[in-house]
Amino acid sequence: MDWRNRPRIGVMGPSRCSERTLDLARRTGACIAREGGILICGGGAGVMEAASRGARESGGMTLGILPGSAAAEANPYVDIPIVTGMGHARNVINVLTSQAIIAISGGPGTLSEIALALKCGTPVIGLGSWRLESPEGQAPPAVYTAHTPEEAVAVALGLIRASLHPSRG
Amino acid sequence: MDWRNRPRIGVMGPSRCSERTLDLARRTGACIAREGGILICGGGAGVMEAASRGARESGGMTLGILPGSAAAEANPYVDIPIVTGMGHARNVINVLTSQAIIAISGGPGTLSEIALALKCGTPVIGLGSWRLESPEGQAPPAVYTAHTPEEAVAVALGLIRASLHPSRG
Amino acid sequence: MDWRNRPRIGVMGPSRCSERTLDLARRTGACIAREGGILICGGGAGVMEAASRGARESGGMTLGILPGSAAAEANPYVDIPIVTGMGHARNVINVLTSQAIIAISGGPGTLSEIALALKCGTPVIGLGSWRLESPEGQAPPAVYTAHTPEEAVAVALGLIRASLHPSRG
Amino acid sequence: MDWRNRPRIGVMGPSRCSERTLDLARRTGACIAREGGILICGGGAGVMEAASRGARESGGMTLGILPGSAAAEANPYVDIPIVTGMGHARNVINVLTSQAIIAISGGPGTLSEIALALKCGTPVIGLGSWRLESPEGQAPPAVYTAHTPEEAVAVALGLIRASLHPSRG
Repeated sequence: MDWRNRPRIGVMGPSRCSERTLDLARRTGACIAREGGILICGGGAGVMEAASRGARESGGMTLGILPGSAAAEANPYVDIPIVTGMGHARNVINVLTSQAIIAISGGPGTLSEIALALKCGTPVIGLGSWRLESPEGQAPPAVYTAHTPEEAVAVALGLIRASLHPSRG
Repeated sequence: MDWRNRPRIGVMGPSRCSERTLDLARRTGACIAREGGILICGGGAGVMEAASRGARESGGMTLGILPGSAAAEANPYVDIPIVTGMGHARNVINVLTSQAIIAISGGPGTLSEIALALKCGTPVIGLGSWRLESPEGQAPPAVYTAHTPEEAVAVALGLIRASLHPSRG
Repeated sequence: MDWRNRPRIGVMGPSRCSERTLDLARRTGACIAREGGILICGGGAGVMEAASRGARESGGMTLGILPGSAAAEANPYVDIPIVTGMGHARNVINVLTSQAIIAISGGPGTLSEIALALKCGTPVIGLGSWRLESPEGQAPPAVYTAHTPEEAVAVALGLIRASLHPSRG
Repeated sequence: MDWRNRPRIGVMGPSRCSERTLDLARRTGACIAREGGILICGGGAGVMEAASRGARESGGMTLGILPGSAAAEANPYVDIPIVTGMGHARNVINVLTSQAIIAISGGPGTLSEIALALKCGTPVIGLGSWRLESPEGQAPPAVYTAHTPEEAVAVALGLIRASLHPSRG
């Protein structure tokens, strides 16, 4: 199987959230899997687990990039745990490994991933996530807004393809 | 000298900004030094350099936590360069080493430091920085707003003292 | 496929080495794949590339944990690039993500991975690698010595199984 | 005070060791302080604490680069705690921030610092530390051997000066 060329899409979100947010995450994971993508997440509970579950149920592959030092900390729907032992610094790895990230709801951890993705040049799609207004004189943040999981994944795939084939512009 | 008990205050901000923002940063650094604080910053240009310069000019001590692998990358007003070689992951070290951070203006890098500080429990004071609205159902971000460098430093010192002596209420 | 329960075996070694060492690495990767393992490596050239190639040629899955910030830096036999942007700090991730590591030849980078694995409790098997003598009064390093790729992989698998089922003694 | 130009010398060693090793560490820290150096260490117990104590007692400045997330974890002789929250990955910061390291005795953690220093180009002086024999075909490790704390510090200072003024040959 051609793993290398399958799109790597990150789903970022809080470990504690509403049922409605969990449902959005699960549908997002399922949609990524149906489109042939590899799901990248932080490997924890809440949005991370629901997205992993959705991807797994649709036959996808899931990676969990863990803050702790034990693979056993990964949620049960993570196929391959990446064990960093680096705490929140692993958020940088999440956004560098993903070719685009979808932020669903989110607390400060998710906000840090949105910000780090913007800093690193990884496209960001928000689905019911943070609203940001940059300081005077600074460029506005390039966060795409989606209204459904399907739209979020479609935008992510479009942005990934555009970055791989920039000349098609 | 009792270095260990001097307050460690981070000043976070962009490497490129307006003259007015540079002036705010320099005054913030100067105020930290006058209050006996140690200035923590990312060691780069712009706000980081202006804050370091202000602190140095007022007789303070400055630490620069660098993303790259060479001490020579530190701006000339950094007294002690901490060389991480870890790129943006050093932002986590900035906010864990600081007992409070003051965010001045800011692009995505500064936003990541605000978010990581909120995640790690380090108090955040904004001075003309990002405006944030958390997603529905999530707690609003606890960012203090200051209007002058002097107010920002006073709030930072008050929050640091409160965290060290919580029983004084 | 049950990815989660497939053994994750790291192959660590230098990016520049002899043809003979490359051959050992390729055979090691092939053997890991035949045994159903997932190959973990640093994603670079030399031993890392030869091991990835051997695993790929035998139908295995390969992960490359990269020091830089671009997935394109991975060698062509890496199936899934993990992009850390953290330089040598990624060596810690290599040894925490692997359930056992096989060190083949090696310069200082490989030595750091042997040492970090010993520190983290990840079993280490050496195949023509560093000889170490610990300081007086300190415990000798628990590095297993193998003489062939096949023996190295067999020892790695045995140690992984023993750690998962410690009660079997 | 001209902090920026004071030599930054790391002292690496285990958190548990013999009284004799603690004495060597304390004398090393004292000697670094007398020579005007800044002591860099991992901030923990054992060799790290004894070296910090020696430096403090001789009027020196000490930095502790901590693996955990709390400044309070630093030993009592650390002047400025650098809080990384990155576990063993902080070993990379130790060796990049130091302009030379002195390894005293040592377990696997110290060995990882020796190896990372060799990889990063930071000179290494061993004082009763690991004996290393590189694999066939690889360059031997450039570790200087010292027999007393005073000799170790003198070699460190000489190597730092040589690296700053390479043309003097």
